[in-house]
Amino acid sequence: MNTDNPLSTFKLKAHRVGIDTHKHIVVTIQINNPICRSAGFRSWARVKVSKDNKWIIATLFVVSSDVLKTDEIGFSDSAWDKLELAEGDEVIVSHAEPLESFRFVRAKLYGKSFTEAALKTIMNDMVEGYYSDVQLSSFITACVDLTRKETIYLTKAMSETGRQIKWDHDHIVDKHCVGGLPGNRTSMIIVPILAAHGLTIPKTSSRAITSPAGTADTMEAIAPVDLSIDQMRKVVDKEGGCIVWGGSVDLSPVDDILVQIERILDLDSSKQLVASVLSKKIAAGSTDILIDMPIGPTAKVRTKKAARYLSSLFLTVGDAMDLNIFITKTDGSQPIGRGIGPVLEARDVLAVLRGEKDAPQDLKERSLFLASKLMEFCCRHSPEEAAKEARAILEDGRALKKFEAICEAQGGMREPQLSSLKYVITAKQAGLITSIDNRLIARIAKFAGAPDSPAAGVELHTPLGVTVDKGQPLFTIYAVSEGELDHALHYHVTHPEVIEISERAL
Amino acid sequence: MNTDNPLSTFKLKAHRVGIDTHKHIVVTIQINNPICRSAGFRSWARVKVSKDNKWIIATLFVVSSDVLKTDEIGFSDSAWDKLELAEGDEVIVSHAEPLESFRFVRAKLYGKSFTEAALKTIMNDMVEGYYSDVQLSSFITACVDLTRKETIYLTKAMSETGRQIKWDHDHIVDKHCVGGLPGNRTSMIIVPILAAHGLTIPKTSSRAITSPAGTADTMEAIAPVDLSIDQMRKVVDKEGGCIVWGGSVDLSPVDDILVQIERILDLDSSKQLVASVLSKKIAAGSTDILIDMPIGPTAKVRTKKAARYLSSLFLTVGDAMDLNIFITKTDGSQPIGRGIGPVLEARDVLAVLRGEKDAPQDLKERSLFLASKLMEFCCRHSPEEAAKEARAILEDGRALKKFEAICEAQGGMREPQLSSLKYVITAKQAGLITSIDNRLIARIAKFAGAPDSPAAGVELHTPLGVTVDKGQPLFTIYAVSEGELDHALHYHVTHPEVIEISERAL
Repeated sequence: MNTDNPLSTFKLKAHRVGIDTHKHIVVTIQINNPICRSAGFRSWARVKVSKDNKWIIATLFVVSSDVLKTDEIGFSDSAWDKLELAEGDEVIVSHAEPLESFRFVRAKLYGKSFTEAALKTIMNDMVEGYYSDVQLSSFITACVDLTRKETIYLTKAMSETGRQIKWDHDHIVDKHCVGGLPGNRTSMIIVPILAAHGLTIPKTSSRAITSPAGTADTMEAIAPVDLSIDQMRKVVDKEGGCIVWGGSVDLSPVDDILVQIERILDLDSSKQLVASVLSKKIAAGSTDILIDMPIGPTAKVRTKKAARYLSSLFLTVGDAMDLNIFITKTDGSQPIGRGIGPVLEARDVLAVLRGEKDAPQDLKERSLFLASKLMEFCCRHSPEEAAKEARAILEDGRALKKFEAICEAQGGMREPQLSSLKYVITAKQAGLITSIDNRLIARIAKFAGAPDSPAAGVELHTPLGVTVDKGQPLFTIYAVSEGELDHALHYHVTHPEVIEISERAL
Repeated sequence: MNTDNPLSTFKLKAHRVGIDTHKHIVVTIQINNPICRSAGFRSWARVKVSKDNKWIIATLFVVSSDVLKTDEIGFSDSAWDKLELAEGDEVIVSHAEPLESFRFVRAKLYGKSFTEAALKTIMNDMVEGYYSDVQLSSFITACVDLTRKETIYLTKAMSETGRQIKWDHDHIVDKHCVGGLPGNRTSMIIVPILAAHGLTIPKTSSRAITSPAGTADTMEAIAPVDLSIDQMRKVVDKEGGCIVWGGSVDLSPVDDILVQIERILDLDSSKQLVASVLSKKIAAGSTDILIDMPIGPTAKVRTKKAARYLSSLFLTVGDAMDLNIFITKTDGSQPIGRGIGPVLEARDVLAVLRGEKDAPQDLKERSLFLASKLMEFCCRHSPEEAAKEARAILEDGRALKKFEAICEAQGGMREPQLSSLKYVITAKQAGLITSIDNRLIARIAKFAGAPDSPAAGVELHTPLGVTVDKGQPLFTIYAVSEGELDHALHYHVTHPEVIEISERAL
């Protein structure tokens, strides 16, 4: 060995294997590679791969077949892109340093609170790609138990991991819905109403975490949402508002890393939720934020007690971060609108903006309520004035005009197209619709392919309190592949309690 | 689509890709595969793959290269072996059911205790391979916060996941060291002493979790440890004792699954620790168990308070599970013996058993102390009688004879061989050795390749309280590859505090 330099490393030729591992960084080395043997590399090891001054931390798998030559190193698509490689490039491979910042996570589990510095270090390490999925999962699990102080530190640390937008205006308005309510796409109606009213509302929204569609997914069915900060700023300067994907403007990029794992765990804790929402608002430069919190037995917030807790957490963190936060609690007992899934929800939104006769009234009224609350909050209108003004802007077409202008400014408006592959679920008996399980109906939409297939999802035909005949359509499942339609149907067959019909109530 | 049968599935031809993912079950499908598109399969999805009446749950990666034909499905070695496939076998692929039992983990994080039934379901799902690494990591993290009742339930559930051994004798003796102390291989000396004394001590030991060697790894440097239950029973019937690997006799197999993730996290909580230890003892049919708990600033148990807590946890769970548990607290301020790593530790053990002049006295005395405690506990000897008897058995060669007989019965004894690749670390200054960091020295041994390379590790030359000259050897690093030796050296260079030398104390 080279005793002068205990840091000697190994050169291999880069080869793109053509394996899609999403954001997970994976490399492969041939088992007969003398370097692999000499370095003691083993499957599942964390290795550092460098080219010039760029480097990544990757999970290694050892391959025994001839997929790779012995002097090659195979890259997953994600790893390939991150190092900006060309076929045959020489790269240097070494053992990854142990992940020192994970000791803060261990200490937290044993009762030692996270300090501000610890969370900042952890967030930075995550953005650098140092954390494996298993470590990310442990961190997310540990964060269910954050104190208020830690939640403030986490929010701050997350907000500082990416770009931060500064605006010239004093009041930058924003709105966020805590979710759990399928089809609740009020933002896309509120933004044009408020922008038409003269407020500045640069809405950055998220893609779905565990739901069948996020606002960004739904907006994308109508207009591009992958805007750069400069492009977003131009839209807002011109129209007063926008609806773009927060991920593309690189606000709180660590949130996207955490969200991937939260999605697998189907877990997002109150603290992680508040930090995720507010870190993006802070980075986006928002100052006045309305939080809509739907409450219902199968919504994300299930009880008034949980709502009180979450509200106080939002207010505490908001106050510490110098944000004006205003919370409304709304009915979360059933989905809003009729569609669940990007295209289906986008069609509901357009129906409301266009004042179509059969537009979902619940989505319209919920949007008007929230828009008027924001007007009260930001413009010091009386409740009556605000309600009247919001309705006027929507019903006289100013909101539609503004929405169309925003879509054009974001890159062009398109009409969302439904899939022709569908299956209608009908009532097995006559009776009264007594419950709709938000979580189960959302899961059926997800199995049908939403949000990755925007045209997939569920369209509800019967809200709570309606009586149906035997054989009457309850909902339609849309999918873009037969396999997914099968799977959604199978899930429904095994979970028939998604919509409950009571015969006795007839 | 087939509306009669919403459970339709897809047939593909099995191909062994030759990728080693350890126990992680991975399959790959070509992106142009029409079935893949139609089923909506995406990378990172969990899929069910069946052949005849066997099936596995696997993580899917989509490949875009020609590594696979479009009608093929690629298998990792682990997946291939588990389904017992032959090249070209037809397999059926479908979406995996959502993991229902993970809702218990989510509920636990939100304050709802695990019930006995919930933990039993979770453990069964884990053994079936339903849990992904990310879900396992979350479960393990959540278990840091178990109540005593939950720890009892977990222990019971774990003990029931595999085989359970029943013995004809009333008293089955066992011994476990809580670890954190490199080189502490007393079991291999205690077992022959007690077996020679007439006790029945069928020792099932573990491989390393986060340490450079477990007792099973060390014993394996001298004799086979992968025995079946029938083979183990034969050894014990003949010799009264054995030292085998718990994993090969399939006791508490879920523990091996959890241990893999704990290793990545470098985390094993008190509750998980007690459940892991006692579930294996229960499954092994032990009735009388000595728990050795070394206490020291860098041992696993760092303070008397932590030792009190862990002791009471062992006693509570032991009592609930009808085990006689006896706890000894010993000095954990520095490694025991000189070697750290399977072969190095095995050589220390043999030196003690053979009564060699330069045998490590600390390992000898610690083993005698624990053996005599077990004699007091199980044979109702007085402390003086027990101490005298244990020493006599070791020093007159009866223990060595019994150890050799056990090795022969387990499949044959071999002499452990050191690696010739080594590097000596010397003192940078003269002075008194004032501290040895167990965790750092263990980490150097791990970077050198222990326990996967049995001949790798660290040999300590200077215990606490010894004075050294400048340039005097402190420890030797052994490795089987130059890369690993480099890496261990690099770690030492960046962590020189592993051994502290005080000039002032001269």
